[in-house]
Amino acid sequence: MADLRVPALRWAEPPHGPVLVLLDQTRLPAEEAEYVCTDVPALVAAIQSLVVRGAPLLGIAGAYGVALAAARGYDVPEAARLLAEARPTAVNLARGVWRAEAAHRAAGGDGPAAAEAALAEARALHREETEASDRMAALGAELLAELLPGGGYRLLTHCNTGALVSGGNGTAFAVVAAAHRAGELRRLWVDETRPLLQGARLTAYEAAREEMPYAVLADAAAGSLFAAGEVDAVLIGADRIAADGSVANKVGSYPLAVLAGHHGVPFVVVAPVSTVDRETVDGRGIRIEERPGHEVTEIRPGAPVTPVGALAYNPAFDVTPPELVTAIVTERGVVSPVDRGNLAEVCSRSRSTES
Amino acid sequence: MADLRVPALRWAEPPHGPVLVLLDQTRLPAEEAEYVCTDVPALVAAIQSLVVRGAPLLGIAGAYGVALAAARGYDVPEAARLLAEARPTAVNLARGVWRAEAAHRAAGGDGPAAAEAALAEARALHREETEASDRMAALGAELLAELLPGGGYRLLTHCNTGALVSGGNGTAFAVVAAAHRAGELRRLWVDETRPLLQGARLTAYEAAREEMPYAVLADAAAGSLFAAGEVDAVLIGADRIAADGSVANKVGSYPLAVLAGHHGVPFVVVAPVSTVDRETVDGRGIRIEERPGHEVTEIRPGAPVTPVGALAYNPAFDVTPPELVTAIVTERGVVSPVDRGNLAEVCSRSRSTES
Repeated sequence: MADLRVPALRWAEPPHGPVLVLLDQTRLPAEEAEYVCTDVPALVAAIQSLVVRGAPLLGIAGAYGVALAAARGYDVPEAARLLAEARPTAVNLARGVWRAEAAHRAAGGDGPAAAEAALAEARALHREETEASDRMAALGAELLAELLPGGGYRLLTHCNTGALVSGGNGTAFAVVAAAHRAGELRRLWVDETRPLLQGARLTAYEAAREEMPYAVLADAAAGSLFAAGEVDAVLIGADRIAADGSVANKVGSYPLAVLAGHHGVPFVVVAPVSTVDRETVDGRGIRIEERPGHEVTEIRPGAPVTPVGALAYNPAFDVTPPELVTAIVTERGVVSPVDRGNLAEVCSRSRSTES
Repeated sequence: MADLRVPALRWAEPPHGPVLVLLDQTRLPAEEAEYVCTDVPALVAAIQSLVVRGAPLLGIAGAYGVALAAARGYDVPEAARLLAEARPTAVNLARGVWRAEAAHRAAGGDGPAAAEAALAEARALHREETEASDRMAALGAELLAELLPGGGYRLLTHCNTGALVSGGNGTAFAVVAAAHRAGELRRLWVDETRPLLQGARLTAYEAAREEMPYAVLADAAAGSLFAAGEVDAVLIGADRIAADGSVANKVGSYPLAVLAGHHGVPFVVVAPVSTVDRETVDGRGIRIEERPGHEVTEIRPGAPVTPVGALAYNPAFDVTPPELVTAIVTERGVVSPVDRGNLAEVCSRSRSTES
């Protein structure tokens, strides 16, 4: 598929020094505006306000952030710490950060050569995630063909998992795009994904650019589609996958998994191995970010819909237990049934088996 | 509890002729604006744009609409037809309309006496629904005490079911209010209820006025509450209940029923007998209103969030099958387990057993 007109993230070296340029995802689809980071605090703010988001892309952004700090002569370990803690749930963020920081340290921890090493590591991660996306697309398309031999898929997705969240075509959306290119996508159902509407704003933007047959719905209307037999499979991404196969993803994923289970519809998670956190034993160990209540109580900043003083409960993610996940598609293979052993086995495959 | 400062609906007779005055629910909670109907087309527009909404209140509004047409000398059968067809799902609307029309016809079908008879019938219906609300509140509170003997309830509700939808304190919300007055409400979880935010706007407004401990959440976050064991029971209203106990209610009710079933949490429907439609054999016979896509694709009129040309799927209601409903609380008694026989038995009880 065509790249995004404005890439989600790029490193640039204008005369006044290197910068990290982000596509401001909070302003899509109305505007394709760039957000330029010249230092790490700006990038941390961008991560926290969701200018840049999506588990794999957060990892890439974090690595480039370390490279930026190094190239501009800031305190690299301090920059790494700030970046790694910017958001808690997606494991990729801290991993990307520490990977670039380790490369910087291994190259002396100071000076141009170390900065170059951090940048090279960020670029390597970016390239790996792009390759992983292509490979997940291929493996996911094979899995769909197996699960749904009739073709003509009606797929439901939640949040946003395309070129805006990773190198390449993303995670779950990359599989949808592969199905579409193969002429097998009958309908993409796009959950709007409240409160921040990543589905209505971003997935719809990506689906429209791909000329997919798609329709947006309120998250709560997904139940009606299942009941009417209008969903052949659910495809989502992940922000962190625990060692037992529990999947943390955008809030609203777990209710879809319960509905899919109730209706016997496959529930498929697509995520690179970099999203699997073997240090986290099970779903209970995943820290779920709680975001500010105003994301729920204001329909846009400063425009409350609730009465003055209303409290809100606003977890950014939820956790789906492995028994509700039909398969996890990674770039190293498909984990199914999802359990600790199968997940560990797929993750331990060498990269050379990927191609 | 205190009545609404501005009642949801009132009949008034200023010098220039009778009018039906509605509290404009589309502008709550920001403004308590009145919407004055001098004729039936204005009322039909109010019904279709959700200025007035909620199954029992639609029935009351429909009956007063017939009285308005009669008092102002319009064609009453034609007015009744227009009103009855204004929205398809809530059975109460057509019922209230035809009840007032029948009274009008029985009193001669023309002239002041017939108009007076239609108005008397509308007032009788209004009074009955108010009494039904009080009775449902009492029976529902008893049911909760039975289901949740520990007290200190954490209740989840969807859409809006309070004084804005019926005479009295409404349906499900009347039960919540009774529990609150009895000191047994630990938390009311309020689903925001996309796309039109009746929960965030209207239920939060009613909960705030009652000084309840409440919190608003994105509909998709309800799953996290169930998973965390933070929901003791779900209480919702209904727009139409088929003879087999299938419940049509605001879209998003069915996913909650599936979640509640998955977690062993009681799922309780509160609705007057006037919402039960014994002519509709089962859930498949319930016509679900599909509303315009712009309710989903625009966050407020004229402000799209999706790309240009995005399609939307926007059913207003969904259907929950009886096996997922723990109990239906009516003013004549509690139906549980929910099946055709128990529902018919409770509905056939005479009103005299209500007190």
